[in-house]
Amino acid sequence: MEQKKLKNILLEVASGRSNISDAIGIINESRFEELDFATVDLAREKRNGYPEVIYGEGKTAEQIVGIMQVMTKNHVNILGTRVSKEKFEIIKKYNEHAIYFEKAKCVIVTHHEMPITESYVAIVTAGTSDMSVAEEAAVTAETFGNKVERVYDVGVAGISRLFNRLDVIQGAKVVIVIAGMEGALASVVGGLIDTPLIAVPTSVGYGTSFGGVTPLLTMLNSCASGITVVNIDNGFGAGYSASMMNHL
Amino acid sequence: MEQKKLKNILLEVASGRSNISDAIGIINESRFEELDFATVDLAREKRNGYPEVIYGEGKTAEQIVGIMQVMTKNHVNILGTRVSKEKFEIIKKYNEHAIYFEKAKCVIVTHHEMPITESYVAIVTAGTSDMSVAEEAAVTAETFGNKVERVYDVGVAGISRLFNRLDVIQGAKVVIVIAGMEGALASVVGGLIDTPLIAVPTSVGYGTSFGGVTPLLTMLNSCASGITVVNIDNGFGAGYSASMMNHL
Amino acid sequence: MEQKKLKNILLEVASGRSNISDAIGIINESRFEELDFATVDLAREKRNGYPEVIYGEGKTAEQIVGIMQVMTKNHVNILGTRVSKEKFEIIKKYNEHAIYFEKAKCVIVTHHEMPITESYVAIVTAGTSDMSVAEEAAVTAETFGNKVERVYDVGVAGISRLFNRLDVIQGAKVVIVIAGMEGALASVVGGLIDTPLIAVPTSVGYGTSFGGVTPLLTMLNSCASGITVVNIDNGFGAGYSASMMNHL
Amino acid sequence: MEQKKLKNILLEVASGRSNISDAIGIINESRFEELDFATVDLAREKRNGYPEVIYGEGKTAEQIVGIMQVMTKNHVNILGTRVSKEKFEIIKKYNEHAIYFEKAKCVIVTHHEMPITESYVAIVTAGTSDMSVAEEAAVTAETFGNKVERVYDVGVAGISRLFNRLDVIQGAKVVIVIAGMEGALASVVGGLIDTPLIAVPTSVGYGTSFGGVTPLLTMLNSCASGITVVNIDNGFGAGYSASMMNHL
Amino acid sequence: MEQKKLKNILLEVASGRSNISDAIGIINESRFEELDFATVDLAREKRNGYPEVIYGEGKTAEQIVGIMQVMTKNHVNILGTRVSKEKFEIIKKYNEHAIYFEKAKCVIVTHHEMPITESYVAIVTAGTSDMSVAEEAAVTAETFGNKVERVYDVGVAGISRLFNRLDVIQGAKVVIVIAGMEGALASVVGGLIDTPLIAVPTSVGYGTSFGGVTPLLTMLNSCASGITVVNIDNGFGAGYSASMMNHL
Amino acid sequence: MEQKKLKNILLEVASGRSNISDAIGIINESRFEELDFATVDLAREKRNGYPEVIYGEGKTAEQIVGIMQVMTKNHVNILGTRVSKEKFEIIKKYNEHAIYFEKAKCVIVTHHEMPITESYVAIVTAGTSDMSVAEEAAVTAETFGNKVERVYDVGVAGISRLFNRLDVIQGAKVVIVIAGMEGALASVVGGLIDTPLIAVPTSVGYGTSFGGVTPLLTMLNSCASGITVVNIDNGFGAGYSASMMNHL
Amino acid sequence: MEQKKLKNILLEVASGRSNISDAIGIINESRFEELDFATVDLAREKRNGYPEVIYGEGKTAEQIVGIMQVMTKNHVNILGTRVSKEKFEIIKKYNEHAIYFEKAKCVIVTHHEMPITESYVAIVTAGTSDMSVAEEAAVTAETFGNKVERVYDVGVAGISRLFNRLDVIQGAKVVIVIAGMEGALASVVGGLIDTPLIAVPTSVGYGTSFGGVTPLLTMLNSCASGITVVNIDNGFGAGYSASMMNHL
Amino acid sequence: MEQKKLKNILLEVASGRSNISDAIGIINESRFEELDFATVDLAREKRNGYPEVIYGEGKTAEQIVGIMQVMTKNHVNILGTRVSKEKFEIIKKYNEHAIYFEKAKCVIVTHHEMPITESYVAIVTAGTSDMSVAEEAAVTAETFGNKVERVYDVGVAGISRLFNRLDVIQGAKVVIVIAGMEGALASVVGGLIDTPLIAVPTSVGYGTSFGGVTPLLTMLNSCASGITVVNIDNGFGAGYSASMMNHL
Repeated sequence: MEQKKLKNILLEVASGRSNISDAIGIINESRFEELDFATVDLAREKRNGYPEVIYGEGKTAEQIVGIMQVMTKNHVNILGTRVSKEKFEIIKKYNEHAIYFEKAKCVIVTHHEMPITESYVAIVTAGTSDMSVAEEAAVTAETFGNKVERVYDVGVAGISRLFNRLDVIQGAKVVIVIAGMEGALASVVGGLIDTPLIAVPTSVGYGTSFGGVTPLLTMLNSCASGITVVNIDNGFGAGYSASMMNHL
Repeated sequence: MEQKKLKNILLEVASGRSNISDAIGIINESRFEELDFATVDLAREKRNGYPEVIYGEGKTAEQIVGIMQVMTKNHVNILGTRVSKEKFEIIKKYNEHAIYFEKAKCVIVTHHEMPITESYVAIVTAGTSDMSVAEEAAVTAETFGNKVERVYDVGVAGISRLFNRLDVIQGAKVVIVIAGMEGALASVVGGLIDTPLIAVPTSVGYGTSFGGVTPLLTMLNSCASGITVVNIDNGFGAGYSASMMNHL
Repeated sequence: MEQKKLKNILLEVASGRSNISDAIGIINESRFEELDFATVDLAREKRNGYPEVIYGEGKTAEQIVGIMQVMTKNHVNILGTRVSKEKFEIIKKYNEHAIYFEKAKCVIVTHHEMPITESYVAIVTAGTSDMSVAEEAAVTAETFGNKVERVYDVGVAGISRLFNRLDVIQGAKVVIVIAGMEGALASVVGGLIDTPLIAVPTSVGYGTSFGGVTPLLTMLNSCASGITVVNIDNGFGAGYSASMMNHL
Repeated sequence: MEQKKLKNILLEVASGRSNISDAIGIINESRFEELDFATVDLAREKRNGYPEVIYGEGKTAEQIVGIMQVMTKNHVNILGTRVSKEKFEIIKKYNEHAIYFEKAKCVIVTHHEMPITESYVAIVTAGTSDMSVAEEAAVTAETFGNKVERVYDVGVAGISRLFNRLDVIQGAKVVIVIAGMEGALASVVGGLIDTPLIAVPTSVGYGTSFGGVTPLLTMLNSCASGITVVNIDNGFGAGYSASMMNHL
Repeated sequence: MEQKKLKNILLEVASGRSNISDAIGIINESRFEELDFATVDLAREKRNGYPEVIYGEGKTAEQIVGIMQVMTKNHVNILGTRVSKEKFEIIKKYNEHAIYFEKAKCVIVTHHEMPITESYVAIVTAGTSDMSVAEEAAVTAETFGNKVERVYDVGVAGISRLFNRLDVIQGAKVVIVIAGMEGALASVVGGLIDTPLIAVPTSVGYGTSFGGVTPLLTMLNSCASGITVVNIDNGFGAGYSASMMNHL
Repeated sequence: MEQKKLKNILLEVASGRSNISDAIGIINESRFEELDFATVDLAREKRNGYPEVIYGEGKTAEQIVGIMQVMTKNHVNILGTRVSKEKFEIIKKYNEHAIYFEKAKCVIVTHHEMPITESYVAIVTAGTSDMSVAEEAAVTAETFGNKVERVYDVGVAGISRLFNRLDVIQGAKVVIVIAGMEGALASVVGGLIDTPLIAVPTSVGYGTSFGGVTPLLTMLNSCASGITVVNIDNGFGAGYSASMMNHL
Repeated sequence: MEQKKLKNILLEVASGRSNISDAIGIINESRFEELDFATVDLAREKRNGYPEVIYGEGKTAEQIVGIMQVMTKNHVNILGTRVSKEKFEIIKKYNEHAIYFEKAKCVIVTHHEMPITESYVAIVTAGTSDMSVAEEAAVTAETFGNKVERVYDVGVAGISRLFNRLDVIQGAKVVIVIAGMEGALASVVGGLIDTPLIAVPTSVGYGTSFGGVTPLLTMLNSCASGITVVNIDNGFGAGYSASMMNHL
Repeated sequence: MEQKKLKNILLEVASGRSNISDAIGIINESRFEELDFATVDLAREKRNGYPEVIYGEGKTAEQIVGIMQVMTKNHVNILGTRVSKEKFEIIKKYNEHAIYFEKAKCVIVTHHEMPITESYVAIVTAGTSDMSVAEEAAVTAETFGNKVERVYDVGVAGISRLFNRLDVIQGAKVVIVIAGMEGALASVVGGLIDTPLIAVPTSVGYGTSFGGVTPLLTMLNSCASGITVVNIDNGFGAGYSASMMNHL
């Protein structure tokens, strides 16, 4: 909290214009609820523009349900990623409004609808096998109110497939490129557009693809400018950042 | 090039409304000039929104001068990065309008002024030693017409330094966080803002910082959302992407 | 597409000798069919000399069937690699002409026979465990019309086994050497022949073989000249490149 | 064994004040019992302040039981770590006093109670998924007679959660910080306290977290001082060292 | 800042007992001074128990002088690490009280004497070449008021050298073990003491010592308990943590 | 084959004293039998002093049986390593003389007894979990006619356990040290003996033990001299080399 | 040496048609000359199709001169790679026919002219900085009698530069693609041609290009088929293999 | 020290047959002299069969001189490795008997001659550039009283060079194989001999040779048995171990 804001709050308290518990709330700019196994951050939407997202991988179905109950009680929209079908079977017993996206392995519960942007995010993949990561990105972006266009399986081995869809890509406000193996697609697309490109390496490949390290390195070293990169298979992160940019 | 556009061009040629060499130019969407050692891409500004940037590291001063002459002839604004002071001494003999930014190791030649944005890019560093990377980002963004605010040496070891400048950071349209060593600053800032954050790992550190690999990994695995990452010490790439986002 | 060819096409259109849709096809040099999950590249045989090959690993049996149906409809020869026996059980229900090579994990459907070369590709392995990679290379090369000679289990621990088969190896137009563990066989064979050698590291080994990284590095650093290398376990890639060379 | 001590013992023997077998025991400062598969170190408590701890991972339930029987016979307190529930089912048949901590995967048998410290060890985690490592640390510290305070799920993405519990953390004599993903929490806490901090990287994360290597590197390169680090997921090691420091 | 403390401060402000600028200072718990290139953290001693330490490696002599002037003005004790002799030649022109420790590459300026502990820190090295790292640790610990005992060149190749000095090591309150090459000394010492051991890997060695990665890994995987580890060559960090522990 | 020997053989052929097929056999110094999947090297015992050993990991039980039948037919002693119990169940149906060592995962068939050495190989392990690697080494050495002494679970965390067995270790002609985790035992033993030491890193450990890479690096960088190293978990290789040395 | 050839030679010896020393020479298929520091392989041209090439990097100018003298005496064409200008200054004092290619760092001495092929090798680079590697490949291929076409600085950031030269590339019998940074050019070119492609990663780049490891991995994992790879910066190896293929 | 020996010593002391200071010496089995920067181990020859060797790399000439003076005073033979010519210039001022081996970078001072073995150690290198490592091994072995045969530059690219010298190699009691690049020579030689082979990887090579890591991995994964490995460029270690084996 910066000096000036803080000074003003304190002046208000000193003058009696604010009461103390209000001031504490403002100063902390935080509301959260503590469970045994989690401290749910309810102020994240206010602070970051989006509510806290539940990362499902290291959590039991019961822990996810517990966090969802706190969020539901507070009327916060819910997005859960990396939730297996088995966990969702348990979750839906507790929350009948939960919707599951199987390819994306995402759960959402909508408590208040978000307006959809006119500009769109293009999600481009090199191959068929990159689709689950792409869908995680797409569901994330759509959940946060973005229009999404999918351009799948247009890798550089058959580069005319890419050129055929180039107008859709060039018309986007933000482009997400998702590729495994050598990840060259990001550089090629990056050289053809004038908007931000978020590159997502995937663990598709074998041998020296090293579980996605190779396309990650490719993307970080791209000779095309305007490319930023997220973690391997991090469709969610790409969708989240794309949403931030699309809403600018 | 997509089917529809291509069809139209061909129809125009078939009907005689366009002549053939015009059509070739449009189809290629490319203009370039071939030197012995380089193929200068003069259409990049049209295609990508920014002119080609000269990466100075692997090139001799003479090669840089040669490329600059082609660009000057075509009235393209020039930005050269990673140009040592020694190389600049030679360059300025050929081009008196060339200006050198020593901390950033950048050369610029301005042929047409760019309007400055009202919104700004905040450039935040963890330490004093990250400054040359930060200046490369700042000069890049400024050259491309962006207002820039610098917030230097506010690493998490003394986190109140960061909170003291938080209003400047939270007021930015795009934030660049630059950090070496363990790179934790990106996650902390990422948890406090609602705008895109571009993280730049630097090679500042020793031992297991592995020349910047450690902060790179930190930034790729950030628990805060909305962070995308560029190559180690890639101040230029961050400034370039930030400019794209700031102009959205 | 190069300028001259393009110019000629446009001249033909302008003069009315070609119609527009023909020109589009030629310019794109591409024909493909879009499925929900794949964009099948039907022009690859024309462009690259061989049809698109289906990489089976990240795909469901249903996706493979879908792609095969498009290729069958277009009378393109089909080669599917890394197809498990389980997937093939499903595939053969849809396509009775599909033939499975169990050791190679390959599926082929032949729509038009390819002539067999007189010159041959020698496929040499260091050990018994390298055989499945070798068979992937062999089936690939044979499918593309090459005569193949197999020389298996002649690793350098018993180098006289290699010398005993040296005439077969020296008689080949192209030699593929496949080895795991330390991969030294490639260097030894490379020093004894005057034809191109494609080296394939395999993931056979344990501990510091690092899943094939060790023979890969061995092969890349060979003191013998004339050796080029493909990805770990990439029998297909070796067979494909060998076929290209054998057809020169 | 240093010269002076040794000299004294030998003088005692030479003068007949000590008998020989006593001298051997003192000189060796060791008592152990040899099983077929293990050499149980019974003097460790005397030498290191704590008894030998059974690392359960590479051992069969039968081997663990065998070692426990030797320790029981010698009235040594038992702590077994990384013991799966399946192994415990077998162990408890042989030792009814064995107690199992499921989240921590620890077995303990108490033969003599240890006094509990007044000062406490704070165990702080970044996320819910770090809990099993945290519990291993907590059970270890508690078994060795330390008061423990748990502060869970206060990672830097929602930094106010941390500030909310800062008084508990700042009141500890030793702090353990446990984090996966990028591990930034260690640096942030390290900048806010004046006591030793033991950082434990966890294998929570995916892609470039590389099974905990990323938070390990983060912690080793922390810009905050006073941080020392243990192996990935080594809750036991952290609890053990924290106990040593808390007892200083 | 925790809720209760904050509430009290605000109550004091609201009641007029505190004035506003005092409250700001307390809330921030921070005092710092901003230079062009650095934000000097003057509250660190209060917050962390020790003043900010100047890491000299990435800084110019002029920047170091600038930071030292701010600290001197505020009567804070100064410790600068990784300061080359060349930089010190410049520094001493500005600050005649600066003392240089050549083996340790440290600069100190003492504004107020610190009392020396009765208990001591033992600093143990495996070889002669580890001495500069050891001296950095020793100077750091001594500057922060600790008695230090040096036990140098007692590596395990001649293990009786270690046993000869074991009484000094066993008499310490905290032990620092510094070793390059394979770093086995840490495990051996760890098995013989009942106090905290801080292990420092050094970059001494060649080939697969990988600049200190090998002893780092050795120390992280030690079969002896009670060992925590710092970054390669981080003598300062070890001295700092040891001081914290020695003052408990 | 060296010049002189070759010359003599040729002279014998030229003079008619040898017939041609004999000469070929001698020149090749090789006898082998080709199966579909293997080229069994029957001359290895003559050339290397020991018969070919069957590495069972990448082979099917049927392939192992096939190779064993060729060896049996030629009265060669058989040693098969890394043979799972499941494979042995099949093998013993074909060869009733096959004996299985479960801890070592080795199969042997003895066609002619080997004399046992008077001098012995000491096999020393750091922990209980290293036992299966140790047994592979022991069975290998014993199969090749060496007396073996086992010294298990004497790691450096309780170094007096090692000193207690030092006479057995010091009495050996060759010492094998087997250790996982940090592998420090090799250096300590190496400093106490005057005979060759073969160090075997094992994959015992977790986190940064990296499946045995850490003890491998430790052993390669040992400050003690006279240590040579084999691959991770390569008990066979250590036993084989030790046998060679013990027979010198 | 294979059985049949050997048999024939021996028959010739037995029948007296060949004398013994001739037979030895043929059997060995080797002629070499031993220097103190080198064993010069004079039969390599006969065995491999090309004479031995002198790798200059680890050798002194004097050693290079020594080897060149042996080769000159035997009228073998000489190619020396990685010869610095300083070394060449010494070499040319001893051999006035030596010609130096500065960009390629190659020395050649031609004793007998080689015929030039009609088909050509295309050498394609991504950037200006890849030129020295490209010239090493070009000089190698030209020295071995190949026609070479250079296509430089056509990286994917400005992909129309590549399409503009595509006819030259598609007209080649073999294509070498040389790229640093992310190396994506190899995949793009590979998707557009039907001839063998040899990919050469270069050490051009910074940060996570890891001295060429990134483009190497990119090229090994290419989604385009028909690509084989050589070591980083190995222009010579690519030129050598390309020559082999061009001569098929 | 084992129980029985210790018991006997103590009995001797108790009975007055031994005096106490003798007993201390025997128990410690150690004599050393402490300098400021080193603890010289004078008992190593007795314990390990060879005197302590001075590793020169991290030490100043003055420190080396200091250690040499202690050793000279005690009439111990001196071997110093990795001593630069510059350091030797200083050393020889203090010790006129010091002899320098420039290629090996070794210093020796002989106080008592060692008898030379009849059996010999063969030292085999792949290339000319491996010579300095080979000479370090040779000088070490010769200093310790071994007959040495050098077989240089016989790498597998011209394998007949190796066969030509095979009789020398096969006649050795121990073989050292030294190779950089891909290190395949070790496997080939290993398959042709029946004596222990010590493999030394060297840092000769470029790109993916990774400073010797590649030949190290090759050697660790050799398909030939009987090979053990030392650190990269560790000629000394190989010579030392070979000497131990040659003296068995």
